[in-house]
Amino acid sequence: MKLATLKDGSRDGRLVVVSRDLKFCQAVPNIAPTMQFALDNWNTAAPHLKQIYALLNQGSASGAQPFDEKQCHSPLPRAFQWADGSAYINHVELVRKARNADMPPSFYTDPLMYQGGSDSFVGPRDPVYALSEDWGIDLEAEVAVVTGDVKMGASVEEAAQAIRLVMLVNDVSLRNLIPNELAKGFGFFNSKPASAFSPVAVTPDELGRHWEESRLRLPLLVQINRQPFGKPNAGVDMTFSFAQLVAHAAQTRELCAGSVIGSGTVSNKQGDLHGSSIANGGVGYCCLAEVRMYETIETGAPQTSFLKFGDTVRIEMNDQTGKSIFGAIEQTVRNYGERA
Amino acid sequence: MKLATLKDGSRDGRLVVVSRDLKFCQAVPNIAPTMQFALDNWNTAAPHLKQIYALLNQGSASGAQPFDEKQCHSPLPRAFQWADGSAYINHVELVRKARNADMPPSFYTDPLMYQGGSDSFVGPRDPVYALSEDWGIDLEAEVAVVTGDVKMGASVEEAAQAIRLVMLVNDVSLRNLIPNELAKGFGFFNSKPASAFSPVAVTPDELGRHWEESRLRLPLLVQINRQPFGKPNAGVDMTFSFAQLVAHAAQTRELCAGSVIGSGTVSNKQGDLHGSSIANGGVGYCCLAEVRMYETIETGAPQTSFLKFGDTVRIEMNDQTGKSIFGAIEQTVRNYGERA
Repeated sequence: MKLATLKDGSRDGRLVVVSRDLKFCQAVPNIAPTMQFALDNWNTAAPHLKQIYALLNQGSASGAQPFDEKQCHSPLPRAFQWADGSAYINHVELVRKARNADMPPSFYTDPLMYQGGSDSFVGPRDPVYALSEDWGIDLEAEVAVVTGDVKMGASVEEAAQAIRLVMLVNDVSLRNLIPNELAKGFGFFNSKPASAFSPVAVTPDELGRHWEESRLRLPLLVQINRQPFGKPNAGVDMTFSFAQLVAHAAQTRELCAGSVIGSGTVSNKQGDLHGSSIANGGVGYCCLAEVRMYETIETGAPQTSFLKFGDTVRIEMNDQTGKSIFGAIEQTVRNYGERA
Repeated sequence: MKLATLKDGSRDGRLVVVSRDLKFCQAVPNIAPTMQFALDNWNTAAPHLKQIYALLNQGSASGAQPFDEKQCHSPLPRAFQWADGSAYINHVELVRKARNADMPPSFYTDPLMYQGGSDSFVGPRDPVYALSEDWGIDLEAEVAVVTGDVKMGASVEEAAQAIRLVMLVNDVSLRNLIPNELAKGFGFFNSKPASAFSPVAVTPDELGRHWEESRLRLPLLVQINRQPFGKPNAGVDMTFSFAQLVAHAAQTRELCAGSVIGSGTVSNKQGDLHGSSIANGGVGYCCLAEVRMYETIETGAPQTSFLKFGDTVRIEMNDQTGKSIFGAIEQTVRNYGERA
């Protein structure tokens, strides 16, 4: 099943069921007016939503209308929780190698996770707003899941059962603000502005054999200014599965339905700077920081600049037939001071 | 104006306006069914809520019913944001002195703030649940504000105008989990379980002359197992005002209505361990960690233990006539594995 939230002027938007081919959708106000409502009442709402989904795919839904992913907000325009893991250890290894720091052994068994801001997500086609290019604006292309209610101390198996939806995310990072902020010891705050999620969120069963042990085994496609930048497989080198990340988040507290748990920047182990770029046959990168780390390790200093006002980022994932599963995140970096 | 949320079996509870003396309340489903709804629509809802408040205080509200703070959930049972500052620098100075670390000069000008989990707050009379006493369960008595919408880069003056409500909070901390978690570099996560807020949230004007430059100048009263433990003045030694904390939170992103911003553990500068306890004429402490830091500084090791299952914590604030402003947070520590 595929779900999306259309912008309608309200804070939480309007839930729609979307056809598998992303061509049609149907609002479902009598089942669930919003995504959070559907998640709050999943056991009763999901069977009815699935019926609509089947009708949409058959072309026989009475209330079908054309689906336009450009009209979408993030599936949850605001959420009660956004917690982002760092499950692709290769990314962490490169970060630390670039600054000559050792990898603590615990990093391979105890997930890194930060609590993010979830009150003001932006839509998948909305600008990435910043007040200054000097903040060091970077994309981070990731996969995320949305959970149902999870009890404190849930097992990995229980956590796996609580995964309701899967989607993509651009977890924007302000790289030049990170060193000072992390030095203060309390984690990210100003360095993590509003994230955007893919137009469509899908149930795990929709991913078929590509959803395996709560990992999504397909390439994540990233473009910067319409040029291919990354295509790593999100199911490869993911040290911690989504079930493990959810269980980690629930170790000392209950998670409320609608909690969004991210994978961290997708990153596959590769050779060197030369061989890792898409142009040279590599799988590329899901954030600019990663190519800058390769550059630092091999040349002593980063060469590639962060995003500038006017730059565009596109994040998407296709199925084995080349069809977009989630629709595309496509954002242009804009100066917040010059917004309309 | 005073507002509260009664438990009614739903996730967001039922908004009520509460009389100044906390004796009566009235549900307002036609104005705002929930606290988040009121905050989302503050400009239209607040004048109507104030009318009800005036009638309640006059004893002439048609729908008045007895108010029982034991029936309350936290004013926002779940919120889209909970960010907690560390505005009482004395607390940070003691933390660092206890481990022989210097205070970075930036700590006096750049607020410490962490992003907390806001999806599953507990009610003011609900248990503090944990799976193990070994987690080092500690209270943190604080003041918090709830904001309206705040634009990115808002000034301190704009932030002050966006403060809608004031309340108390018990920001439970799991002290024994903190060192390992902070060493990972991504801030608090498992070490910060569900927080509880006071039964009643009040508008700043309700605090009269005690609300000054967005600081709340009254003693915060803390009991542990019904014995006085702390009474520091929340308006004293607060290095950063709430307006400064809100502006800090909004530096790189918009804040959505209903964002909860905390002060951090209230802490007044005092002399030594002996003189700081209430029994010896001091103002005491708002968390066990603070008395343990005094003990560490003066005797080389902490003596006081953290909370055990069965211990109770009470947090309250009275006006100058001794009447409770917010109602009381009163929580017993319980084993989550033995809950009903």
